[in-house]
Amino acid sequence: MNPKTPPFDAAKIREISKEFPTPFYLYDEQAIRKTAQDFSAAFDWAPAGFRNHYAVKACPNPRILKILAEEGMGTDCSSMAELILSEAVGITGDKAFLTANNTPLSEYQKAKELGAIINLDDITHIPFLEQIGLPSTLSFRFNPGPLKGGNDLIGKPEEAKYGLTPDQMVEAYKLAKSKGVKKFGIHTMVASNELNPDYFVETADLLLRLLADVSEKAGVTIDFVNFGGGIGIPYRPEDDAVDLQRVSEGIKKRYTEYIVNAALKPPKLLFECGRAITGPHGYLVTEAVHEKHIYKDYVGVNACMADLMRPGLYGAYHHATVLGKENVAPTETYDVVGSLCENNDKFAIDRKLPPIDQGDIVVFHDAGAHGRAMGFNYNGKLRPAELLMKADGSVELIRRAETLKDYFSTLSYPGLA
Amino acid sequence: MNPKTPPFDAAKIREISKEFPTPFYLYDEQAIRKTAQDFSAAFDWAPAGFRNHYAVKACPNPRILKILAEEGMGTDCSSMAELILSEAVGITGDKAFLTANNTPLSEYQKAKELGAIINLDDITHIPFLEQIGLPSTLSFRFNPGPLKGGNDLIGKPEEAKYGLTPDQMVEAYKLAKSKGVKKFGIHTMVASNELNPDYFVETADLLLRLLADVSEKAGVTIDFVNFGGGIGIPYRPEDDAVDLQRVSEGIKKRYTEYIVNAALKPPKLLFECGRAITGPHGYLVTEAVHEKHIYKDYVGVNACMADLMRPGLYGAYHHATVLGKENVAPTETYDVVGSLCENNDKFAIDRKLPPIDQGDIVVFHDAGAHGRAMGFNYNGKLRPAELLMKADGSVELIRRAETLKDYFSTLSYPGLA
Repeated sequence: MNPKTPPFDAAKIREISKEFPTPFYLYDEQAIRKTAQDFSAAFDWAPAGFRNHYAVKACPNPRILKILAEEGMGTDCSSMAELILSEAVGITGDKAFLTANNTPLSEYQKAKELGAIINLDDITHIPFLEQIGLPSTLSFRFNPGPLKGGNDLIGKPEEAKYGLTPDQMVEAYKLAKSKGVKKFGIHTMVASNELNPDYFVETADLLLRLLADVSEKAGVTIDFVNFGGGIGIPYRPEDDAVDLQRVSEGIKKRYTEYIVNAALKPPKLLFECGRAITGPHGYLVTEAVHEKHIYKDYVGVNACMADLMRPGLYGAYHHATVLGKENVAPTETYDVVGSLCENNDKFAIDRKLPPIDQGDIVVFHDAGAHGRAMGFNYNGKLRPAELLMKADGSVELIRRAETLKDYFSTLSYPGLA
Repeated sequence: MNPKTPPFDAAKIREISKEFPTPFYLYDEQAIRKTAQDFSAAFDWAPAGFRNHYAVKACPNPRILKILAEEGMGTDCSSMAELILSEAVGITGDKAFLTANNTPLSEYQKAKELGAIINLDDITHIPFLEQIGLPSTLSFRFNPGPLKGGNDLIGKPEEAKYGLTPDQMVEAYKLAKSKGVKKFGIHTMVASNELNPDYFVETADLLLRLLADVSEKAGVTIDFVNFGGGIGIPYRPEDDAVDLQRVSEGIKKRYTEYIVNAALKPPKLLFECGRAITGPHGYLVTEAVHEKHIYKDYVGVNACMADLMRPGLYGAYHHATVLGKENVAPTETYDVVGSLCENNDKFAIDRKLPPIDQGDIVVFHDAGAHGRAMGFNYNGKLRPAELLMKADGSVELIRRAETLKDYFSTLSYPGLA
């Protein structure tokens, strides 16, 4: 259970919206910092250290990344743009990871320049990367295939395009070693938005056993082990957050058994969680602008699927709070909709809510990851601004809203310049 | 059946890509013009005229819209940006339609300025629009609810957020008439990408009967009837295109029965098809850059879901042609994938194709509608260029590719400006 209480009230939003009109994203800096600290603290037992590499794709805003850098986090980058963002906030060297797939050479080049850890997705990428010279450190992404069930969101590992098979893992380390690579890491990522803590312990079990196996078979020492991301967040009030302590203890037990007791060199522990760090601390703030009563009852807000895709794309639940009516009984059943000409442009379906009046502020929770980042411009819609709420309650614009000029910027048609 | 033969070969693409690197969208001007002409010709019997209002959202490129304007088409706009695009290519007055939902007043204001037809999605929008003064012409969107089954893509009408109920339709015309509106239209849209011609005839049957009913009950004359869009295209080689002649004859029969024989004033016939006009004549042109063999065989191309969302979003089929290997036996079974860190970033799954070598040009068909338009920047990916291939074989850049500067343009962080 979690209370879904936003860290602001209607008056605060009215005040903010005088300067920054709704819809906008609002991130809670203090809560992000605390979550980052708690995450690191949960793994402080790790003998060779611990670091979460924040998945930049979740919220590719440099101000957010800078906060995470200050809290000791690294980055997990998946593209040129994300490498550049990481560089801009000073996360370089082994604090930056490039975990990409089907990767162009230019991105490997950029990662090398930054001294970032390159995590190869396929064995063929060793000769591919050799075109620009192999770095001294390499990591490989493991795909357990039928050895491990995936979860609903990520699908079955054997049908996933990612990673190397167990045999290829051994072969890859041998090959890289023979080509002069000195330091090695190992990585997997087999879940997305998973709430079961045991899932992560099982993944760690699999990966730590593989670590021991490839160390022996390929004759290499593995310096870091990256358990990937996928730690889910409690989108629904009745959901429980992942018990990090339980995950940590479970991993510690396997780490002790497979590494320490086997007298292997203790590898550094890494995660690449994005959603679990910022997800709960970002809010999409909208205003009710229309109501409609046909075969069902609708409330239209001034945002749409272009601002937050997850409900339309995955049918995902985002909790809604009507500010100022937190204690009013949810006597109504609404579809809360956007303005896109796509019928799945619905933030909420058959949602029990208090009666909503036009002008009411409707806030969607848990939009701090894979929210603004996944927006599009379909139907000519413009993507929203991002604001950062600081500990003292002040607000900073950390990304301006798109304008029509932005929307037309790739055209050179008369009258649209 | 349709042959899925692109109007270009490998040599042509190699030549184009010297100036414009892959991936890019390539549109076939001649084929678009012919389809537009054929569509209009199919309804040349309509006594008060016919016009297709191209759904701008399908391909919001002004050069494409200008071609359609030259072929006599109007626009169907769903937002401020689309109204401005329509204006830029000279489609204003009753050639422009605003069919939006949950619409802000600013868009109604712009539509009024252009003299565009405003098609109201809800009865409450009459008083809403009155704030800026009602226009002399109004149209209303009908939602048949349980009277009409939807299709898979659009869902059940009674669960759709769009339109007015039958009772509200009568009430809306009465109200608008009492407030001085002089000219009226009627509209519905209950399908998306539908290939069954009879579906459109049934929709027309429903709408023309409603037209007669509201004319009598509200005491109004309906000047135009808009059957919406939704005409599908044969994405698969084994699909047949919608037989427009059959649609036209079926509608003509109902038009004669419900309108002409009932001595009602013949309304102008309108459609708002987008996909059927440009869909088959746009190609996403990519290059094979990686291959990978794990639990399945993969070919990686240099485009991703950010360039074309439909396969990842809907599991949609887009036919693939490997240029220069059109006559090579499809002995391989590939997943053709992009580089997004989303496992559904697959252009094709278990697709039978000829053996693909790195550097091969892989073309995805039927990307001329809801293709580039739906792209996003997730994972820091940049959206591609659009090129127009003219009758003489020359190529014009009609939208440049996005750059990192575009991607960072809404930020003002040091080092990213």
